[in-house]
Amino acid sequence: MTDDLPVRVIPLGGLGEIGRNMMLYEYDDQAIAVDVGLMFPEEEMLGVDLVIPDFEYLLEDPERLLAVFLTHGHEDHIGAVPFLLRELNVPVFCTPLTRGLVQVKLREHRLQDETHVQVVEPGQTINVGPFSVEFFGVSHSIPDAVGLIIGTPLGPIVHTGDFKLDHTPPMGQHTDLMRLAEVGREGALLLAADSTYAEIEGHTPSEQTVAETLDRVIGEAEGRVIIATFASLISRVQMVLDAAEKHGRRVFVTGRSMVNNVRMARELGYLDASDNLLMNPRELDSHPDSRTIVVSTGAQGEPTAALTRMANGTHQHITVQQGDTVVLSSSPIPGNETLVYRNIDNLYKAGANVIYSLIAPVHVRGHAAREELKIVHSLVQARYFVGIHGEHRHLVHHRELALDLGMHPDDAIVLTDGDVLELTEDEAYIADSVPADLVYVDGLGVGDIDHIVLRDRQHLASDGMLVVVAAIDRQRGTLAGIPEVMTHGFVGPDDEADMVEGVRQLVVDLFGGEGHQLDWTSMRERLKDEVASHLYRETHRRPLVLPVTVEV
Amino acid sequence: MTDDLPVRVIPLGGLGEIGRNMMLYEYDDQAIAVDVGLMFPEEEMLGVDLVIPDFEYLLEDPERLLAVFLTHGHEDHIGAVPFLLRELNVPVFCTPLTRGLVQVKLREHRLQDETHVQVVEPGQTINVGPFSVEFFGVSHSIPDAVGLIIGTPLGPIVHTGDFKLDHTPPMGQHTDLMRLAEVGREGALLLAADSTYAEIEGHTPSEQTVAETLDRVIGEAEGRVIIATFASLISRVQMVLDAAEKHGRRVFVTGRSMVNNVRMARELGYLDASDNLLMNPRELDSHPDSRTIVVSTGAQGEPTAALTRMANGTHQHITVQQGDTVVLSSSPIPGNETLVYRNIDNLYKAGANVIYSLIAPVHVRGHAAREELKIVHSLVQARYFVGIHGEHRHLVHHRELALDLGMHPDDAIVLTDGDVLELTEDEAYIADSVPADLVYVDGLGVGDIDHIVLRDRQHLASDGMLVVVAAIDRQRGTLAGIPEVMTHGFVGPDDEADMVEGVRQLVVDLFGGEGHQLDWTSMRERLKDEVASHLYRETHRRPLVLPVTVEV
Repeated sequence: MTDDLPVRVIPLGGLGEIGRNMMLYEYDDQAIAVDVGLMFPEEEMLGVDLVIPDFEYLLEDPERLLAVFLTHGHEDHIGAVPFLLRELNVPVFCTPLTRGLVQVKLREHRLQDETHVQVVEPGQTINVGPFSVEFFGVSHSIPDAVGLIIGTPLGPIVHTGDFKLDHTPPMGQHTDLMRLAEVGREGALLLAADSTYAEIEGHTPSEQTVAETLDRVIGEAEGRVIIATFASLISRVQMVLDAAEKHGRRVFVTGRSMVNNVRMARELGYLDASDNLLMNPRELDSHPDSRTIVVSTGAQGEPTAALTRMANGTHQHITVQQGDTVVLSSSPIPGNETLVYRNIDNLYKAGANVIYSLIAPVHVRGHAAREELKIVHSLVQARYFVGIHGEHRHLVHHRELALDLGMHPDDAIVLTDGDVLELTEDEAYIADSVPADLVYVDGLGVGDIDHIVLRDRQHLASDGMLVVVAAIDRQRGTLAGIPEVMTHGFVGPDDEADMVEGVRQLVVDLFGGEGHQLDWTSMRERLKDEVASHLYRETHRRPLVLPVTVEV
Repeated sequence: MTDDLPVRVIPLGGLGEIGRNMMLYEYDDQAIAVDVGLMFPEEEMLGVDLVIPDFEYLLEDPERLLAVFLTHGHEDHIGAVPFLLRELNVPVFCTPLTRGLVQVKLREHRLQDETHVQVVEPGQTINVGPFSVEFFGVSHSIPDAVGLIIGTPLGPIVHTGDFKLDHTPPMGQHTDLMRLAEVGREGALLLAADSTYAEIEGHTPSEQTVAETLDRVIGEAEGRVIIATFASLISRVQMVLDAAEKHGRRVFVTGRSMVNNVRMARELGYLDASDNLLMNPRELDSHPDSRTIVVSTGAQGEPTAALTRMANGTHQHITVQQGDTVVLSSSPIPGNETLVYRNIDNLYKAGANVIYSLIAPVHVRGHAAREELKIVHSLVQARYFVGIHGEHRHLVHHRELALDLGMHPDDAIVLTDGDVLELTEDEAYIADSVPADLVYVDGLGVGDIDHIVLRDRQHLASDGMLVVVAAIDRQRGTLAGIPEVMTHGFVGPDDEADMVEGVRQLVVDLFGGEGHQLDWTSMRERLKDEVASHLYRETHRRPLVLPVTVEV
């Protein structure tokens, strides 16, 4: 026995930010990962497609990672799985729907044949190395979500994943409080719990409230009803299908991810729709509007999503019109507010009646608010606590909640990505740190974009660029011919000719005389500085100036 | 008499968007403008500093505009005044505090000597052309805010400006419901009313609730208290000064606009602070934290504002530390959420206790919610209604509110910027439209940035750029020397050398052979296309490719 070894808790992502969730639990140089998610780039990460966790620590010792466990199928929990498996082909364990969603990704990355994703049902336990990992069901905004009870030599860890408590969940998806109570009675080492809503007082309402609103809206609408929501919100789609059946309407599904998810969820039995309920585009054309429901992507105002195209008149089959009722069954993800409200404005301009979370309860979220968190803390009664998921302030609020419930301040810890928390029977302490940078994916490149590239992009974005080409007569050291000037993103077409002429004149004045003995490097520097100063004087803008000198 | 002429209502800005408010009222080719505001650029308006109204319609006939009336001193109502006066030097009428804020701007634009800004007090009336313009007081989040009762040959127009109803306003700033009732009794032609909160049920709370929270927070804090709010929220600053006095603390003011506004408001008598209450930096250094309050800018997370610098450790005098209580007395303006919450996270990381609108009532807003709007509609009982201020959906909601109160659908109109609404005794109809584009200010340029420039900036922002320079031997039509390749914002430093070498090789392969007879234009096109395809294959990125060919 190596009883005096600590259990190590290492967040590689998801603490202090939204998304990119990835947590390592480690004992004696053997680790398991829980979730391998991605994050969508923030505004200043120009041109970045995705942000994934930093695998450097795991790659340093490729034997370390034994397996990956996934709690549910949202992008911020599974989106980076292909990027990890490409480097470390370890087995993945998850519930059936999560597996369906992961396989779609592995197929896109052409990894499905060489990887191993095994289905686990709630209640089952997987043993890997020193860990026994038991899945327990939780309520969240996607079916088949689970938390994990991770047995370690020092006692069990409860890792909730994303969850809420919903006493009337639409698809029977309860958070298994009974099992948590058992673990608590036996004595848990650590509670690692969802902190996303740790600053929200009270309880998150049941998904059932949304079902009631949707039923009422569909029942009262006279024209076509268009409902946009997240493609992963399978239970929300089921509600719409149920209301459609009840009110004698047929359903058309649109938006690539929505169509794919509905197909996959039906195949796996997570969505119950009679064949006659769903319409193809031809049937849609001939079906009366008053008997039609459209289920669509685009609830976040994404510029190329189906709802946005319907509002702008660029959707293949549907244009929003007078008499339509459009429901945005979502609320804006932080950072998306502008796009969402612009889309709502466009829907109103197109003549629709628009129903969104600000004016009716058409959305509830999938995370536990403070009173729900207190229940889980009280049941699990762990020795130690760390908040997972959420930005830094959420972790601080969640820690304060734990202290309010009586935990000792030394036992409730706020971690940052890369921290190595060591837990023993006596104490918890941050012992070390490992690399946990934001890794940017842009096109085929993973991790090559750094802050210099982003700074250049920011510079180009803000004032554009200007290239000035000067041909130099090698023998005489003078300018040969008229300098060439090109600009992009700098000034408008009306001013461009004058601006180009001004720069040409400046270059002629600078280097037009005879016999300059400047070396090329200093000449380019001088050209760049003089042109930049000139442009700033003229415009108060600072485009990127690229001097090119060619000997002739 | 020209009794059969209509009154024309022409929004040049502020309908269907936030900010850039400007409204024309016109009769017989004589117009007055109400507010000349600016709007801050949205995310995709790369490099744009400000967005102002389109003055083209007014410039077409420079005699048309007789005067400008300003309702209050917020940027979205006065920010574009210098840009207008530079083109059309008409008299401006406003209350004293608004004048103080406008003069700061005119001074920056070196226009203060040649322009004429006249002070008007609520209750006073100004006669210009066919209009008599009476100012009436309103409650808003800045002192000295007014609405206008604009007498026209067809009857009075009530233009509310931004307002709310506050029965316990901190600086005696009531909305003059009595005067509105009188106008209503006499019969108003048009109500043009603030729509910003037309989708919010109920009442906006009184500013007094904030005073109570601030007093409690300051009373309970043991260490330093730092309060960030909008520099224009003079009444909020007064509350802090009052609470400081009461709890025996002294106040340090920081952030350029906050310092300027506090100075100006004290000079004009809008802020009451004993000299001993305020501290200079030297006094701050020696004063105990437990007796210190800092009033600061940066409540919106602006990267260079004082609070952000205090959180990042780059402020000249103050670094946020363990024991500080930081109050964000504001709520995020749509689009700013990410910056605001990032700043809150940084404050927590610095060790502060942070209090913000999500967790305590430290902010109320300055706009009337639905029940308040109903009161104004019921008092004014105008023949016609148009919603002003706010995005399109707010105008739609506000119109529906007017219909709910019994207005005929033809008499309540949703306008878009540039619409020309004609009002007669019998009907209201959109008769025409005038130019009302978004005019971008970037550096010294006003209006030169168009969608092509923005598209180029977007392209550069997303994938950067690559310049390839090929020198061509004039006689032989072959490549002379090694092509030069420069990139910015495209790939990271580790990949750049390989990428440059690959492009060079491609160019050599393309043009290295003997006797090409391509003309330069087609050669550049080919170079551009081949390089772009090559780069996309290699990286799945699409940088802007700039081919340069030089004859030697």
